[in-house]
Amino acid sequence: MKIYADNAATTKLDAEAFEAMKPWLLDEYANASQSYSFSRKPKVALNQARELIAACINAESQEIFFTSGGTESDNWAIKSSALANLNERPNIITSAIEHKAVLNSCAAMKNLGCSVTILPVDNFGTVNPADLQEKIFLQTKIISVMLANNEVGTIQPIKTLADIAHASGKIFHTDAVQAVGHIPVDVKLLGADMLSASAHKFNGPKGIGFLYVRDGLKLLPYIDGGGQEFSRRAGTENIASIVGMAVALKKNIDALDKNREHVKNLEQLFMRELERNHIPHTRNGSEHSLPGLISLSFDGLDGEAIFHRLDLMGISISTGSACDSKKIQVSHVLKALHLSESRAKGTIRISLGKDNTSEDVHAIVAALKKCFRD
Amino acid sequence: MKIYADNAATTKLDAEAFEAMKPWLLDEYANASQSYSFSRKPKVALNQARELIAACINAESQEIFFTSGGTESDNWAIKSSALANLNERPNIITSAIEHKAVLNSCAAMKNLGCSVTILPVDNFGTVNPADLQEKIFLQTKIISVMLANNEVGTIQPIKTLADIAHASGKIFHTDAVQAVGHIPVDVKLLGADMLSASAHKFNGPKGIGFLYVRDGLKLLPYIDGGGQEFSRRAGTENIASIVGMAVALKKNIDALDKNREHVKNLEQLFMRELERNHIPHTRNGSEHSLPGLISLSFDGLDGEAIFHRLDLMGISISTGSACDSKKIQVSHVLKALHLSESRAKGTIRISLGKDNTSEDVHAIVAALKKCFRD
Repeated sequence: MKIYADNAATTKLDAEAFEAMKPWLLDEYANASQSYSFSRKPKVALNQARELIAACINAESQEIFFTSGGTESDNWAIKSSALANLNERPNIITSAIEHKAVLNSCAAMKNLGCSVTILPVDNFGTVNPADLQEKIFLQTKIISVMLANNEVGTIQPIKTLADIAHASGKIFHTDAVQAVGHIPVDVKLLGADMLSASAHKFNGPKGIGFLYVRDGLKLLPYIDGGGQEFSRRAGTENIASIVGMAVALKKNIDALDKNREHVKNLEQLFMRELERNHIPHTRNGSEHSLPGLISLSFDGLDGEAIFHRLDLMGISISTGSACDSKKIQVSHVLKALHLSESRAKGTIRISLGKDNTSEDVHAIVAALKKCFRD
Repeated sequence: MKIYADNAATTKLDAEAFEAMKPWLLDEYANASQSYSFSRKPKVALNQARELIAACINAESQEIFFTSGGTESDNWAIKSSALANLNERPNIITSAIEHKAVLNSCAAMKNLGCSVTILPVDNFGTVNPADLQEKIFLQTKIISVMLANNEVGTIQPIKTLADIAHASGKIFHTDAVQAVGHIPVDVKLLGADMLSASAHKFNGPKGIGFLYVRDGLKLLPYIDGGGQEFSRRAGTENIASIVGMAVALKKNIDALDKNREHVKNLEQLFMRELERNHIPHTRNGSEHSLPGLISLSFDGLDGEAIFHRLDLMGISISTGSACDSKKIQVSHVLKALHLSESRAKGTIRISLGKDNTSEDVHAIVAALKKCFRD
C-alpha cells in the first residue's frame, strides 16, 4: 500500500503537463530570447504560457514574471521592495504564520537595517485587520500576508488587508503558493500588488513558479543579468517547465469546482470516520480554510511517532510544516496559534489532493486507529 | 536544412540526461526534504547528483549548491558577498567582458552604495593580472572574473588572478558558465573560492545550475527560506533537473578530450575553408580560447544582416552576445576589445558543439560565401 496524503508539500506532476514539456526538453531547445527562426516556437510557447497563467488568476500577461519557484518569488517581492528604500531603514510588516520563505526574507532584510513587524494571529490562525491598521507607520514600505497557510490551511482576509495597506499608500504582497490552483484566486478581487505562486503545488514541475506584479508597480529585479522577463528577471527561460506549469494550472483551474468538491467530500468523510472510530482529536485552523488540508492534534501523543508509524504502513503525511519536518521542535505556526505544548507536539497534517480516494481516507483512519490501540 | 551553430547560447539536452530525469518527473515526485520513506529515493538521487557534479570539477560534495542557473549563481556570489559588508561600502572588482549576470549584479550593488572597479582587457580579451594587483584596496571584498568569455571565447588566467586576490585576503569568484563541460575545470587548480555553472550550457536542462562555494567560506544565502541545500539556498529541490544536470555533466566530462578534439578539428576546418574560399575576415579573441567558439569580423559588413541571411538558409548563429541579440548596438565585450566600430558591427559568433559535423562547417562557409557574393 502506498498512500500519498502530503499534497500540501508537493503534488504529482500532471501527465498532460509532462507531455506538454517534452518537445521543449527534446527537439525545440533553442534559447527563447534569440532572434533566429529556431527560437520562434519557444518564444510563442513562452507568450502563450504567460497568457494562460495570467488568465487563471485574472491578471494581464505582462504582470506575470517567471521565477524558480515560490521561495524566489517571496524573496523577490519582499527584498527588492526593502532594498529599494534601504537608506530610509524601511519597515516590513508580515504575520507570524508565514512560510519561512517570507519570514527568513524579512530576517535577512532586518540584518541590513530594516525593521520587521510581525502581526499575531488568533487561535484559528487569522490575522486581525485592525492589527495591521495599527502597526502601519510612515516607514512601512511593504506588507506581506499569505493567502492560505500551509500548515493549518487558514485563509486570510487578503482583500481587507490589501485595502488597509493601500489606504496608507503601502505595497501589499501575498504568498499564494498554497492557494493557487486550489481555491479561486483573482488578483483584481484580492487587490494584492504582488502574488507568489509555485508550480509543484498545483501538479506542475518543481523548480518553477511566478510572481504576479501589478502593472505600474515599480519593483527592481532580484536576479540581475540579461533582458529576459521584460528585463525584470534575468536568466535563460526554462521553457519546458514554464509550459508544464501553465498546462497544470489551466487544468486545475478548469476543474477547480470539481476538485474542491471531491477533496472537501474526502475531508468530511475523514472527519466523520475519526468520530465513528472514537479517535479523540482536535482540529486546528479556521472554518475558512483550504479544502483537504487537515491539521489534527492528538493531545498527549507524539506527532512524530504517529508520522513514522503511518510511514511504516505506507502512508505519507506531515508533522508541523513540510520544511521543518526534520526537526522535532514545534513549528512557528502552531506556536502562533497558541496551542498548548502537548497539543502542538501531538499534531499531524494530512493534506488530501484530487488523486486521493475514499479508500485512502479509510486506510488513513484505520492506520490512525492502530496508533491509538497500541 | 537546419544547422545549429549557437552552442554557446544553449545546447541540446542530452538524451540520457532526459531519460534520467523522467522517473523524478513521473512517479518519484516526493519532496526530497521530507523524512518519510517516499522521500528516500529523491534524497539519495540528490546526494548522488551532488557527488557526481563535485567529482567533475574536483570539489567536495558539500561545496556544491544547486541554483536555478548560472545567472542566479553569479547574483548569489557577488551580491551576498557585498551585502554582508554593506555598511563598510565594499568594493567589487570585475572585468569589462563579464556576462551581464555579473555586470548587472555589480551595478545593483553600486546602487546600494558599493563601489565597482572594472578591469580593462587587452585586444585579445585578456585581463592583465597586474591591473588586478594595482586595483585591490582595503575595501575590496570580492573579485569576479570569468573563466571563459561567451562572445569571443578568451580564457582568463584565473589561477594567477585568484592568487593575487588571496594574497590580499580577498574572495575570488569566477563565472565558469561557458567553460564547465567544455574545458577541464578543477576548482583546486583554479583556486577560486566560488564558481558558477549552468546546466543548459553543457547539454543539461534549462533552469538549473550550481554554485561551488569553497569549504569554510562564509557566504550568506541569497534565496532565504527553508533549510534546503544545507540552509544556504532555500526552495523545494528540483530533483529531475538536478539529476539531468549531473548525468549531462558526467557524460561531457567523460568525453571531454574526444569532444574537444572533434570541435577543434571542426574549428580548424572552418578557418581553412574561409581562407580557401577567399572570404576576407579577422578573428577575435585569444589563442587561449574555448574550442569551437569562433568570433569573426567582416569589416564593413553588417553582422545583423549576415545573421538574418544565414537564418533564412536554416543556420542559427549569433551576433554579439546571446543576451544582446535583440539590440543592434555593439556588445560591451567587443567594445572592451577595442574593435573599430565598422569591424564590431560586422561581427558574428559561430559556436560549434559536439553534435556538429564537417558537413555543417561546409554548409556554413557556403552560406557565408553567398553573403559576400551578393
